Amino acid sequence: MNRMTLTPIGYVKNSAGRETHSEEFRHLRSKIVIDPTYSDGLMDIEQNELITVIFYFDRTAGDYKLRLHPRGDESRPITGVFNTRSQYRPNPIGLTVVRLIERQGNTLAVEGLDALDGTPVLDIKPFVRTFDEGVEPDDPRQDRALRAR
Amino acid sequence: MNRMTLTPIGYVKNSAGRETHSEEFRHLRSKIVIDPTYSDGLMDIEQNELITVIFYFDRTAGDYKLRLHPRGDESRPITGVFNTRSQYRPNPIGLTVVRLIERQGNTLAVEGLDALDGTPVLDIKPFVRTFDEGVEPDDPRQDRALRAR
Repeated sequence: MNRMTLTPIGYVKNSAGRETHSEEFRHLRSKIVIDPTYSDGLMDIEQNELITVIFYFDRTAGDYKLRLHPRGDESRPITGVFNTRSQYRPNPIGLTVVRLIERQGNTLAVEGLDALDGTPVLDIKPFVRTFDEGVEPDDPRQDRALRAR
Repeated sequence: MNRMTLTPIGYVKNSAGRETHSEEFRHLRSKIVIDPTYSDGLMDIEQNELITVIFYFDRTAGDYKLRLHPRGDESRPITGVFNTRSQYRPNPIGLTVVRLIERQGNTLAVEGLDALDGTPVLDIKPFVRTFDEGVEPDDPRQDRALRAR
């Protein structure tokens, strides 16, 4: 298998564009509007305080360098793209853990999503410490209820 | 834009198959062999203790239910797929934070990757608390050095 094709499950709606400064995303409210085809998959999502949103950097797709100055800042030393969170990547996949504020039908209101208005969303997952923090099952941070998923 | 095409940057090599129990992955050692085309993107990756691996559930692609019993266990109540980490998803993307043990050339040795032998890898990112834990910039857990990426 050499190529995989994905289809958006929904889109981001917010006030962010390419001119938005990275610091502004921290408290930015966004909506994620899920396609009604996938509504049933949202069952119980509102039980999560944190969700992981996987999205597609559509504005930068196909445009990357394997080595770059982080954030395009030439005062920072060049490093490998896989050592950065740059949106210019071989596979332009973005990934952010955000706070889920509320769900209304197919629409999720979230805080902290660093994606631009109109960004295609590929997946949503509950945040689970064993997968997302590399903790051991006997680590006190481990939440057994979440782990059961 | 309705469909996105991705290309693997590398593949997982380990001893895991479909019969491997989920608990066994916690301490499983895997290798991630990156295609030489992308070698330059690995520069400095060895500075990270934890990396996020994004991979493609090739064994389950195209096979999903929007509502399911978590882990196929009928004693667990049915819930939405986006409220689970199931490998049966509309876009079969897997995501796990793993421990990076060492790098040798294009090969990363990691611990805790819950992907089967031969799984295509789509992306690798450094683990950064502000993106991956939903923490605030003034949260004491915040690591300023990492955040700079």
